[in-house]
Amino acid sequence: MKLKLYVDRLSQPSRALLIFCKLNGIDFEEITVDFLKRQHLSPEFEEINPMKQVPAIAHGRLKLFESHAILRYFACAFPGVADHWFTADLSKRAKIDSVLDWHHLNLRRGATTYVQSTVLGPALGRLNPQAASEAEKILTASLSDIETIWLKRNGKYLLGSSQPSIADLSLVCEIMQLEVLTETDINRFLSPYRKVLQWIEDMRNATNPHFDEAHEVLFEVKAKYNNVAESSIRAMLP
Amino acid sequence: MKLKLYVDRLSQPSRALLIFCKLNGIDFEEITVDFLKRQHLSPEFEEINPMKQVPAIAHGRLKLFESHAILRYFACAFPGVADHWFTADLSKRAKIDSVLDWHHLNLRRGATTYVQSTVLGPALGRLNPQAASEAEKILTASLSDIETIWLKRNGKYLLGSSQPSIADLSLVCEIMQLEVLTETDINRFLSPYRKVLQWIEDMRNATNPHFDEAHEVLFEVKAKYNNVAESSIRAMLP
Repeated sequence: MKLKLYVDRLSQPSRALLIFCKLNGIDFEEITVDFLKRQHLSPEFEEINPMKQVPAIAHGRLKLFESHAILRYFACAFPGVADHWFTADLSKRAKIDSVLDWHHLNLRRGATTYVQSTVLGPALGRLNPQAASEAEKILTASLSDIETIWLKRNGKYLLGSSQPSIADLSLVCEIMQLEVLTETDINRFLSPYRKVLQWIEDMRNATNPHFDEAHEVLFEVKAKYNNVAESSIRAMLP
Repeated sequence: MKLKLYVDRLSQPSRALLIFCKLNGIDFEEITVDFLKRQHLSPEFEEINPMKQVPAIAHGRLKLFESHAILRYFACAFPGVADHWFTADLSKRAKIDSVLDWHHLNLRRGATTYVQSTVLGPALGRLNPQAASEAEKILTASLSDIETIWLKRNGKYLLGSSQPSIADLSLVCEIMQLEVLTETDINRFLSPYRKVLQWIEDMRNATNPHFDEAHEVLFEVKAKYNNVAESSIRAMLP
């Protein structure tokens, strides 16, 4: 049975799954679950994901949510996926898992909370300056950790690898959501981190045209909230 | 080279690793990194984990942190570990990954933040009624999700399984940290969830004597902060 991807392109892990499938020739049907229209709360979608969040998938009898679990599953279930995405080497795979697990309470918590408490706050009913202030600290610390720890070793990608893993893809999509912020905010967050900027550019090159195509939606959001429809992040890339 | 576990028994993921190794006959050396004495900030420990958190491991040339990544690694790297802990069946493994990934921003965020903002607040310098209030909402919603979603199907353990997985172990250790709260708090959080209480008892039975031994430290904390040195959770179990 054909793989079904239940996604909203406004969600960064949804974009990561779309890019991954397109890059790796995984055939799928994209089913939009529009969370601004509250479609994630429908009884039909609750049958797919009882937690009522995108992304989720249905593949044969398997229904699955949590984007990292889905990326791991894709890498193992589809024989055409190259080993570097989630290598069978146990020690190296454990390090990829370590980055993915770290992500949740660090980069994701910081970036998503910041965006949802500021620019997307009015649409989501979550405008919250105090939450934004706390999220900013977590986001800044996380970007610093990526620069000084995950990108410490030589090699273009996280953990010193010469080819990207599912951890690179998940984290870069998380950072790309900052695109909807004001230029001042984006500069403030990203300009101190030259290795992070180089890595974003390397990930973009490694995954295009799918990377740019998946992120187009951000410019629509940006135009709506900031009256700017061009990329501030791309302007900063090396 | 013998496996080294860098742990503080005050940390719930440290306890999960200790229980897992003892249950599965994995030979290890326990190295205490006392975070109340700020030993996790030492240059020696930074060599093991640049993020300066316990637990972490060293196994041959591999240094690894993030307890879920470590549990996955243990289950795959030590041949004596039974399949049910992290089965090789791809779809079932993906579901275990889904629970583990969900855990970070839900049960862990709620339970750990609540404990650290209330009873452990003075020792950690993090007493924060507002953070506690927000954490309480996340904790309660997470316990409800465990009761109605993860324990929905027949079968003693999460996802309807007849034997526990690393997800059961990680989540039950997270909940057990609530033991340090007052009896009133523990009752308020846990008494609505009869399936969760039965599952805690089943996990305790499946992993004893290591479960009780790893959790002894909580009664020392409880005696210090609440003048009670006996289990309130155990008194509630079926």
